Amino acid sequence: MEKHPLPLGEVYGLLEPGPVVLLTTAHEGRTNVMTQSWHTMMDFEPPLVGCIVSDRNYSFGLLMAGKECAINIPTAEMAEQVVGCGNSSGRDTDKFAVFGLTAVPAGTVAPPLIAECYANLECKVVDTRMVSKYGLFVLEVVAAWVGKPEAVWRTLHHQGHGTFVIAENSVTLPSAMP
Amino acid sequence: MEKHPLPLGEVYGLLEPGPVVLLTTAHEGRTNVMTQSWHTMMDFEPPLVGCIVSDRNYSFGLLMAGKECAINIPTAEMAEQVVGCGNSSGRDTDKFAVFGLTAVPAGTVAPPLIAECYANLECKVVDTRMVSKYGLFVLEVVAAWVGKPEAVWRTLHHQGHGTFVIAENSVTLPSAMP
Repeated sequence: MEKHPLPLGEVYGLLEPGPVVLLTTAHEGRTNVMTQSWHTMMDFEPPLVGCIVSDRNYSFGLLMAGKECAINIPTAEMAEQVVGCGNSSGRDTDKFAVFGLTAVPAGTVAPPLIAECYANLECKVVDTRMVSKYGLFVLEVVAAWVGKPEAVWRTLHHQGHGTFVIAENSVTLPSAMP
Repeated sequence: MEKHPLPLGEVYGLLEPGPVVLLTTAHEGRTNVMTQSWHTMMDFEPPLVGCIVSDRNYSFGLLMAGKECAINIPTAEMAEQVVGCGNSSGRDTDKFAVFGLTAVPAGTVAPPLIAECYANLECKVVDTRMVSKYGLFVLEVVAAWVGKPEAVWRTLHHQGHGTFVIAENSVTLPSAMP
């Protein structure tokens, strides 16, 4: 998918609506993909993202060691891959191979981007003080890529146990909110 | 709207998909409503929610003083009220009156619940260590109320500048994920 760089001040518009994401991590030749819904914007610019990764996840070790990740935002067409990545572990599964995900090099971080996702955010870990108690990593988005802005990207929003609502129709009201 | 109590272990299914919420606060007779999209689940049970409230918001003072709030989840029919609450300040506006929101007493916290919202989460602030740097309040959900579970609740997901995508159609895949 052809993508263009997104100004960092517009990153919140991708994550604020709460899509399920695929988090990629890498360290010393090992890479992984994790399905993730527990994230929040924390600041506009530079964009900060709070992201919960449990120490029970294989990605936890890679993220703590590598201190970088990519947040890849899938569309509804990728639902099976999203659930597949959530139901398997990088300890014994090469999720890129098993689920047919294409890893492409990022510009500034070691973990790969997922080509099939409509947006990719390259992130560096900037604060780990809440990791031991809550698994909360504070990430700074250092580069952002997105597909055609005029397209309607149908995102998945997890309600638990494999049920996702799909966000597609939109409504715009006059607003002074960012 | 008639509601039933929701088991606390199921709260994540309401917030994980990332809906815009109306945060109610109260302290010493002052109450407020704030439109809020920067939140994340942090733990399943007891449910912990990370919630960003800037010190530029009127709600910040009420939340710091009262240490309680309610997270009220509106449906798409409430889009105008959601944007109205986001574009005004409790410093000079009684948002309940201006936007026709019905305040009903909560069971365990001082801030009122919004009757028109399809779900209400009563919350206590349990950790303020990340407030000064990031405005991040860690909340524990102590009671949860929801409308008919069989209904399809169309939630709003903010993409910025008053544009919301609406989550309505759902897809369920076999999954071992919670």
